[in-house]
Amino acid sequence: MAKSELNLTMLCDFYELTMGNGYFEQGYKDRICYFDVFFRQCPDGGGFAIAAGLEQIVQYIRDLHFDPEDIAYLRGRKLFSEDFLEYLSNFRFTGDIWAVPEGTPIFPKEPIMTIRAPAIEAQLIETFVLLSINHQSLIATKANRIVRAAAGRTVLEFGSRRAQGADAAILGARAAYIGGCNGTACTISDQMFGVYAGGTMAHAWVQMFDNELDAFKSYCQMYPNNATLLVDTYNTLKSGVPNAIRAFNEVLKPMGITKCGIRLDSGDIAYLSRQARKMLDDAGWTECQISASNSLDEYIIQGLLRQGAQIDMFGVGERLITAKSEPVFGGVYKLAAVETPEGEIVPKIKISENTGKITNPHFKKLYRFFGNDTGKAIADYLCVYDETVDDSGEMEIFDPDATWKTKNVYDFTAKELMVPIFLNGELVYECPDLQTVRAYCLEQVDTLWDEVKRFDNPHTYYVDLSKKLWDIKLGLLKEKGKK
Amino acid sequence: MAKSELNLTMLCDFYELTMGNGYFEQGYKDRICYFDVFFRQCPDGGGFAIAAGLEQIVQYIRDLHFDPEDIAYLRGRKLFSEDFLEYLSNFRFTGDIWAVPEGTPIFPKEPIMTIRAPAIEAQLIETFVLLSINHQSLIATKANRIVRAAAGRTVLEFGSRRAQGADAAILGARAAYIGGCNGTACTISDQMFGVYAGGTMAHAWVQMFDNELDAFKSYCQMYPNNATLLVDTYNTLKSGVPNAIRAFNEVLKPMGITKCGIRLDSGDIAYLSRQARKMLDDAGWTECQISASNSLDEYIIQGLLRQGAQIDMFGVGERLITAKSEPVFGGVYKLAAVETPEGEIVPKIKISENTGKITNPHFKKLYRFFGNDTGKAIADYLCVYDETVDDSGEMEIFDPDATWKTKNVYDFTAKELMVPIFLNGELVYECPDLQTVRAYCLEQVDTLWDEVKRFDNPHTYYVDLSKKLWDIKLGLLKEKGKK
Repeated sequence: MAKSELNLTMLCDFYELTMGNGYFEQGYKDRICYFDVFFRQCPDGGGFAIAAGLEQIVQYIRDLHFDPEDIAYLRGRKLFSEDFLEYLSNFRFTGDIWAVPEGTPIFPKEPIMTIRAPAIEAQLIETFVLLSINHQSLIATKANRIVRAAAGRTVLEFGSRRAQGADAAILGARAAYIGGCNGTACTISDQMFGVYAGGTMAHAWVQMFDNELDAFKSYCQMYPNNATLLVDTYNTLKSGVPNAIRAFNEVLKPMGITKCGIRLDSGDIAYLSRQARKMLDDAGWTECQISASNSLDEYIIQGLLRQGAQIDMFGVGERLITAKSEPVFGGVYKLAAVETPEGEIVPKIKISENTGKITNPHFKKLYRFFGNDTGKAIADYLCVYDETVDDSGEMEIFDPDATWKTKNVYDFTAKELMVPIFLNGELVYECPDLQTVRAYCLEQVDTLWDEVKRFDNPHTYYVDLSKKLWDIKLGLLKEKGKK
Repeated sequence: MAKSELNLTMLCDFYELTMGNGYFEQGYKDRICYFDVFFRQCPDGGGFAIAAGLEQIVQYIRDLHFDPEDIAYLRGRKLFSEDFLEYLSNFRFTGDIWAVPEGTPIFPKEPIMTIRAPAIEAQLIETFVLLSINHQSLIATKANRIVRAAAGRTVLEFGSRRAQGADAAILGARAAYIGGCNGTACTISDQMFGVYAGGTMAHAWVQMFDNELDAFKSYCQMYPNNATLLVDTYNTLKSGVPNAIRAFNEVLKPMGITKCGIRLDSGDIAYLSRQARKMLDDAGWTECQISASNSLDEYIIQGLLRQGAQIDMFGVGERLITAKSEPVFGGVYKLAAVETPEGEIVPKIKISENTGKITNPHFKKLYRFFGNDTGKAIADYLCVYDETVDDSGEMEIFDPDATWKTKNVYDFTAKELMVPIFLNGELVYECPDLQTVRAYCLEQVDTLWDEVKRFDNPHTYYVDLSKKLWDIKLGLLKEKGKK
């Protein structure tokens, strides 16, 4: 966010500071910790999600610092030692971060980011890291569902006015674009990220003129190459479409222009679009595109298309920008290991009454296996950091929730999914531009089988553990189970 | 947002700029328009909502301007005339804004803000005005529901990590406080707005130590006056609560401290809290407070209390910060009137197939009638700008959706709800500090009858129109109905 000067270092949960002060006082300041970011369930019962939000984390980490007024505020809370406040005033991130690139399809329980850093640093960044990944992955995932439902038709993000704050609008448009939207109505997202912004007219434009025809003709005169007319202010079929055709005939036809558009924003879109299509075609405006924009989401779009709706472009608002059907992406940030002063990595596990909430311990690597014949993703594979995968031969993998279920994979290519972002506090990753991220996302979603992509009861994609990692996990479970 | 330097002028829907350019070219630049902001339905089927987000609109309007890079971006789009771009580079808001103060209970279909300004200005601010009101009113309304469910117990907002972007976290905590929350976990919201921020420990703190008891004792030593221990890392009743009691006994008791706390974050909160209460009481820690924080909302809190859960403090996360059960507050921005060059105000109406979506035309005033005997709110009353209400005698009001339903009101005080915020572009309103807004909100919610406040099938509060306004509306409907 080039234009933002807001320092977000203080956007942390207060307990990160009280714990930080505690680690400092207990001598754990330099203790190296490993945290994983992962999520437990795909939104909307889907088969996968789309990772997004990394670029904002990179900027946040790079800019991390406490200003004098932050220190003054903290001193005023009378909880923190002067030594700790002094430490904070020189604070910067010195650790390592690995993450999957934005636009990558991701699956439950696999790390999408791993943080290795001194305890205080690793703890302090928890809130913003989660917030950024949770928000943008949520919207990118929802957008990808909507774009797939639209089956090749244009999808524009129209939801700024219903977004949960300015960032939700600006970065929501960014995330929606990563997920496959073709553009947005949000001007600043175009300016900042190159998410193409477009737009035509509100009902107020039509109401501002003495009559609908004058409003339409004026707009066609102003924007002959971008004339999309909103036809539902008075009566779509009796007034809006006939007046649009008259305006096109009187203004655009003499200019030799054949491309134009109308937008439906209310009423029975399936019926109205079919009727409007017929009226436009009969009048010779076969290239006139029909847009629709009334409380749409992936299911309504599928329904409209099943009913034979004649729509070329969908404007999707509140149900995309808030992911209305499931507005929370439950990414979590869990301790996976700590290092002893001698550099030994000690795996840690968080157990739970709910077995689904038990974490995968240790410093790990994440691979995706692609079949060499199909190019399709076969399974993801989690192993300990010092293991490597030999994809030249055959390999047996097993389901960690049901270890008797095994699968032999062969003729595959193993690709490591997490790449280094920061090493020793230095940024070592260049964030690709947004067009590249979007293209990568669409290409990677294409590597998933249709069974993983369908909306209803999608196939559960395999995320398997190496034998070594599984044995470590089992050992820790047995040890904790004794208490 | 004192720390923010992000200019949000470009956070507008692109059509506001294409329309603006059109108004400019058509000579409508100085045409005075009246827009109303209102909403159509209370979230979660509630009986009312809480207005919030005005302070951020005030800052946005005051700071409105286009920077040279904004003009350069717009010029690059090749849609706008040089005269219009020149106009934008000197752009500022010159109009009038009236609004209900933050914290006011509000009802469907009544204006909560009215904008009177030249067409381009009034149109340009649409997106941000709606976004700010929609977001913060949504969260304030949800928070108020949760606080009422908690029936006097402390409620803290804990949701930053699941918020839809940084603003959603920062301003969400602000809005939750207006709605009645006692504080937040979000540090920056305390620093910026004085929303008290608190916090204790994550599971990682417990995992960092060799054992749970050491982790608890260390924390008690660090923060003897703020020792709230998270007791569910291993096993709440077998390990967590007994270790907490040992830590309290060994560290706090010798200091003479009797106030402390435990936090439950998983499992069966109703059962665990009752058992933990008994164990704490039996050990003499009767002043130890029990907090709970696992996917709570107003219904789960009501259920817990019905089951006799022993909870003193609720930490509410994702279901509050995203208003998960209904994450969209559908505020809209509709043209109500335009002025002729001679200064005559011409009312405008937006008709719709759906009669519920028909707008209330004209430049209006909004009154709330309070009974002098009870202090309770009886009805809201919308009239034309040049009408006044005489509350010294008796008045007959009628339901605009069923005009035969009338009600006589007497012995009441009529209070105008919207106050001037900007006049001729000058800020004439001082935003109260957040504690004042919160207190005002709680006091105003107290003026509503319990029947309006209940969650299930609340009574529909009266929002009536004056006879004059009703006649104008009917006249416009008949005129448009002829087309």
